[in-house]
Amino acid sequence: MIHPIPSGTRDVLPEETREVRAITDALRRVFERHGYGEIYTPALEYESVLGRADMAEAQPAYRVFDESGAVLALRSDMTVPIARVVATRYASSDPPMRFCYFAHCYRGVRPQRGQPRELLQAGIELIGSPAPEGTAESLTVLCHSLDAVGLKDYRVGLGDASIFPALMASLQVRDEARKGLLEALVLRDFVGLEQTLAEAGISGEASELLLEVPQRRGGPDVLAEMPVPAHDAVTGLRRVHELLEPAVADRVIFDLGLVRNIGYYTGAVFEVYDPALGAPIGGGGRYDELLGRFGRSLPAVGFALGVDRLHIALAGEERGTGALLARSSDRGPWSDGGAAAAGQTPVRSGPSR
Amino acid sequence: MIHPIPSGTRDVLPEETREVRAITDALRRVFERHGYGEIYTPALEYESVLGRADMAEAQPAYRVFDESGAVLALRSDMTVPIARVVATRYASSDPPMRFCYFAHCYRGVRPQRGQPRELLQAGIELIGSPAPEGTAESLTVLCHSLDAVGLKDYRVGLGDASIFPALMASLQVRDEARKGLLEALVLRDFVGLEQTLAEAGISGEASELLLEVPQRRGGPDVLAEMPVPAHDAVTGLRRVHELLEPAVADRVIFDLGLVRNIGYYTGAVFEVYDPALGAPIGGGGRYDELLGRFGRSLPAVGFALGVDRLHIALAGEERGTGALLARSSDRGPWSDGGAAAAGQTPVRSGPSR
Repeated sequence: MIHPIPSGTRDVLPEETREVRAITDALRRVFERHGYGEIYTPALEYESVLGRADMAEAQPAYRVFDESGAVLALRSDMTVPIARVVATRYASSDPPMRFCYFAHCYRGVRPQRGQPRELLQAGIELIGSPAPEGTAESLTVLCHSLDAVGLKDYRVGLGDASIFPALMASLQVRDEARKGLLEALVLRDFVGLEQTLAEAGISGEASELLLEVPQRRGGPDVLAEMPVPAHDAVTGLRRVHELLEPAVADRVIFDLGLVRNIGYYTGAVFEVYDPALGAPIGGGGRYDELLGRFGRSLPAVGFALGVDRLHIALAGEERGTGALLARSSDRGPWSDGGAAAAGQTPVRSGPSR
Repeated sequence: MIHPIPSGTRDVLPEETREVRAITDALRRVFERHGYGEIYTPALEYESVLGRADMAEAQPAYRVFDESGAVLALRSDMTVPIARVVATRYASSDPPMRFCYFAHCYRGVRPQRGQPRELLQAGIELIGSPAPEGTAESLTVLCHSLDAVGLKDYRVGLGDASIFPALMASLQVRDEARKGLLEALVLRDFVGLEQTLAEAGISGEASELLLEVPQRRGGPDVLAEMPVPAHDAVTGLRRVHELLEPAVADRVIFDLGLVRNIGYYTGAVFEVYDPALGAPIGGGGRYDELLGRFGRSLPAVGFALGVDRLHIALAGEERGTGALLARSSDRGPWSDGGAAAAGQTPVRSGPSR
């Protein structure tokens, strides 16, 4: 007998839950070893509180009215709730503060595509530690975490959210054109970026620069000969890289076109890739202005991993090497809310932070 | 700076989270040792699916419309979602099946009283094992779990949800009076019960019986000399008791007035009490008809513990004995949604299953 569950959600059965627990337990041990204390915040928040952050594409999936008519929303990440907690419960604590979490978050992705609307995230927030030290610590915890769960072939793309806006500003790109260009970049759609540049009447050297810089990807040499408006960001990335232990530095690929789809990032941003998965496993970055919006201005950096994606990547790697974990045939897809029965094909996809 | 969170929710900070994790890890080890596999189901379900169960007072706290206009609700327990999973994903599996869970549930308690609307529950469901064996196994896992987390002074009240309805039926209490009598009994309000009996025109022997039987509480001797309509239930309770190992049997107090506030219970019901807490830490019982409503008719029994209440009881016991855990001064109360600031006093209370 079939009883449907909402689009983008799924049941996790015991065999899979056991593997997920093994992953989250390993992550928790690393987070705790690095001094990060686990925090839990309510799944529901006042939308007016969450609204202090600019969540851009990470919009809440579900809105609820409470009995007094106030609008509640299911959290779409844990970064904003933890910013709220720091401002209210740690208003006079000395920085740096270190928090971690394991929590389901809810996203307003397009319905009926088999994409997750409820996703388990594991992550850390390092509050009050500026660049480059805080960024380097965050990348170090990230790599130690992935090493601890046994992911082998991952790479960390490292960029800076301020590079492209700085280039656009210096080239006097009109305000109304900037949003469209950034959107194309978020999608890594360089053909679309070129079209959007042409439509905005940007040509010649300006257009070449805006197309060339974000496609720079590789070792430290991609940081050479950068245009002046990007000098500060690139110097910052170099300093972060110098602070990394060799095993972590070796994982980093500079990616000057990396732009994340969440509005609060201000500086270094990063994403985790693995050849076993066609989408980022997680990511993070600096959000030095978010805490100020909640009344306690502190620099901050953090990351979130999509536990489901990490699980799929691990299973994929282990299938490749014939090891133990590759039992995820038990794994159910995210519900398409009944669309498959109606002849549509669900597409497996998942979270960015 | 104060940023409110919704009434009945709260932030759990690292010191407390560490203690909560120690409790849930210990519970999980016991559940797994007894063969219970952990399951996770979506926080949101279609209300039409949850509605197959009669949730009585455990009404969903929050309703949400999805983009197609269907009504979603945040789960108010895990028993109903697991019944759904058994009927859909284990439609042809051989019973018994054993599942456990650790999940936040959401309740529509009265707002602005500082009562939790979001609560972490830990529990098991034993599907396909009839009374008395299944009931005895469930009580055994319950006591082993509480022993494992170090709770010392708890007792398990054991009754049968069918006793009072059987008495009312045999005494030909009118249908319209039964609901009010049961409600008084759920509240353990024997003065109210007496009044309600009088208002319903029930007097003499019938009234005496309906007042006396549910006040029987104690050792196996309270099962003696029961009126005929309760014989089956009492024989069932005796058989369960005979199957229990001595350490578990010693925890049991028969309580013939025990009626839980959830409609799906059909037979034995039980609740956990501890002198350190003025409210049940959790409870459970048999729900032999619930699975059939989802299309796979199987007898079933299970329990849920309120992890927050268990934590408070442990801290209370340890304060009494000078032991380690009594650090819950860090513990924040459930939000009253701003009522305290408006001069109202929040009342600490919490989950029944």
